[in-house]
Amino acid sequence: MDRVNPKGPRYTDIVAGLSDAAPFVDPETQERGQGHLFSARLGANENVFGPSPKAVAAMQAADGETWMYGTTDSYDLKCALAAHYDIGFDNIVVGEGIDGLLGYLVRLLVGPGDKVVTSYGAYPTFNYHVAGYGGDVVTVPFDGNYENPVALMAKATEVGAKLIYLSNPDNPMGTVHDGATIQAAIEMVPNGSVLVLDEAYVEFAPKGAAPVFDTNDPRVIRMRTFSKAYGLAGVRVGYAIGHLGLIKSFDKIRNHFGLSRSGQIGALAAFQDQAYLAQTVAQVAAARDRIAAIAVANGLQPIASATNFVTIDCGRDAAFAEAIVDDLCARGIFIRRPFVDPQTRCIRISAGRAQDLDLFEAALPTALKNAS
Amino acid sequence: MDRVNPKGPRYTDIVAGLSDAAPFVDPETQERGQGHLFSARLGANENVFGPSPKAVAAMQAADGETWMYGTTDSYDLKCALAAHYDIGFDNIVVGEGIDGLLGYLVRLLVGPGDKVVTSYGAYPTFNYHVAGYGGDVVTVPFDGNYENPVALMAKATEVGAKLIYLSNPDNPMGTVHDGATIQAAIEMVPNGSVLVLDEAYVEFAPKGAAPVFDTNDPRVIRMRTFSKAYGLAGVRVGYAIGHLGLIKSFDKIRNHFGLSRSGQIGALAAFQDQAYLAQTVAQVAAARDRIAAIAVANGLQPIASATNFVTIDCGRDAAFAEAIVDDLCARGIFIRRPFVDPQTRCIRISAGRAQDLDLFEAALPTALKNAS
Repeated sequence: MDRVNPKGPRYTDIVAGLSDAAPFVDPETQERGQGHLFSARLGANENVFGPSPKAVAAMQAADGETWMYGTTDSYDLKCALAAHYDIGFDNIVVGEGIDGLLGYLVRLLVGPGDKVVTSYGAYPTFNYHVAGYGGDVVTVPFDGNYENPVALMAKATEVGAKLIYLSNPDNPMGTVHDGATIQAAIEMVPNGSVLVLDEAYVEFAPKGAAPVFDTNDPRVIRMRTFSKAYGLAGVRVGYAIGHLGLIKSFDKIRNHFGLSRSGQIGALAAFQDQAYLAQTVAQVAAARDRIAAIAVANGLQPIASATNFVTIDCGRDAAFAEAIVDDLCARGIFIRRPFVDPQTRCIRISAGRAQDLDLFEAALPTALKNAS
Repeated sequence: MDRVNPKGPRYTDIVAGLSDAAPFVDPETQERGQGHLFSARLGANENVFGPSPKAVAAMQAADGETWMYGTTDSYDLKCALAAHYDIGFDNIVVGEGIDGLLGYLVRLLVGPGDKVVTSYGAYPTFNYHVAGYGGDVVTVPFDGNYENPVALMAKATEVGAKLIYLSNPDNPMGTVHDGATIQAAIEMVPNGSVLVLDEAYVEFAPKGAAPVFDTNDPRVIRMRTFSKAYGLAGVRVGYAIGHLGLIKSFDKIRNHFGLSRSGQIGALAAFQDQAYLAQTVAQVAAARDRIAAIAVANGLQPIASATNFVTIDCGRDAAFAEAIVDDLCARGIFIRRPFVDPQTRCIRISAGRAQDLDLFEAALPTALKNAS
């Protein structure tokens, strides 16, 4: 308790030690800061191609019934997922995006001083959750533009990690390992540890990037989302698939009424429209090709991507890439870049529609000139 | 680590000690269990009168843009709330319903063994969160059908509570204290403690039930929601108002992308339609009167309500009230009842439309006969 002003809150030791600096700045905040709206929104790996019209129609029909709470167990959605993947209903938990599910998972496993292993430069929100529960993040460097599953597992074994994070495909580099490599990593998970395999972008990846689901294996929990390929970032619906015991434990702590009703309904309708998904994936692949071509035409090096974004190696230092990002944002093109070295030499462009990429293509040469 | 099967998760001590029995059963689960749908949905204190048509239209317009994430700070909504209440933007945090905000608040303050004071029979989700962070719930009995602010503060002082919960109006009894009584309770909050004042139902209460906002006071945080009077339970948007330091601390731990985009937009549109709110409040008041009249006509004792439900004292034991609830649910009328003695003698009916209350009125006499 503060002796000077004893009135009011006494925070937990963990909270008292946390940084005030939240790493979350949304494009709307940037727009207010710079005084104008973005013309192209290509920075948050949102799916500009949008959700299935069937999902939109289902949500619009549900909007008049939002006086009802959503269901606690996302029953209809889980039934559809279980049937599609041929897994058990009870091997699935639906949550407030992968962000929400990662927070719950960390809370289940990680207490003060517990070790957690991830790649240096991987998903910052995961690190935020680990810090938020007092855990210690131990990192392993990328192997070039790839996460390094073998090094992750070796480090986890060395430090006795309770949790290991790996994304496949990867963000922020967009690279992918094949399913056999991932399965080999699962086999290397040390005793007493769990691998969380973040597959947010897996629908964009080549066939075979995802191992077959084995819900009998307590060593891995896999997370997927409706925010990316299904074009529903705004509804905040993700899901995790894993062993019964771990999945069931989420029910001990999660916000059982945390999901919007129309979001659950929209996610189900989107999932049932696999033809639209296939069309989106094709559009994204074409957009990736175009972003890569624009990069090459400007003397930059695109990194082959299995996601809905292309990370471009700008070939110089972090200051150069930062100047490009700042210049493009200032002129209405919202993009981002990786945030730790050596990846800070890159910029990251989400797959956009033709009109979005037209703007990017037109603005990039000037940005490069201004940054030089 | 389990020696027999060392593979897989090592849970934290807190999680390992938590009950498997989640207290959350939604009406959809009940419907599946009994094999038929409810004809009247009067058990979860949802607002059957529904949201403002302007909110529905705003959400429908936003559904096609759900490929975008919602904002991290609910900027437009917070601006509207700040202007309406004449408080600072930074004195407000928006979250995934009051349920979500209560979870965050508990996490900020409560660690293993910390004491938290609430009324015996008050909001079970709050107790769920306290248990979920290892805190000890210490309870004070209701004073008849009312929560007892003075006893709550005395107990908090006695046990050194870090957090105190009080709802006004109260759930599950529906009673209310006037603002002066609540303000007097705030003045009694012991040093090093915070009162969370749950005002989920305050829009239904008589004028004067809410003290004036004083965001300079670090002893109280107040929570409100769009789930009740605004008819938007399904969007999961609530907010908390309090002292800058406490409100800012939520940013250290919350899911910054936890809210749906259309939910934020719908909540703002609903908030801006205060005329519709007034109409809803009048409809709810009329429905309360009718529920009370139905109770009296059946020889039961309605408890005066400041909420969108009426709790009815059935005048006998818990088994009798339980039999009434079971009978009504079995015949399509979804209602609930308080869950601890001595309130278990009561049943709780949400304010419904005329057609909902017609069904309740028609079914109640038989339910009473069957329960006797």
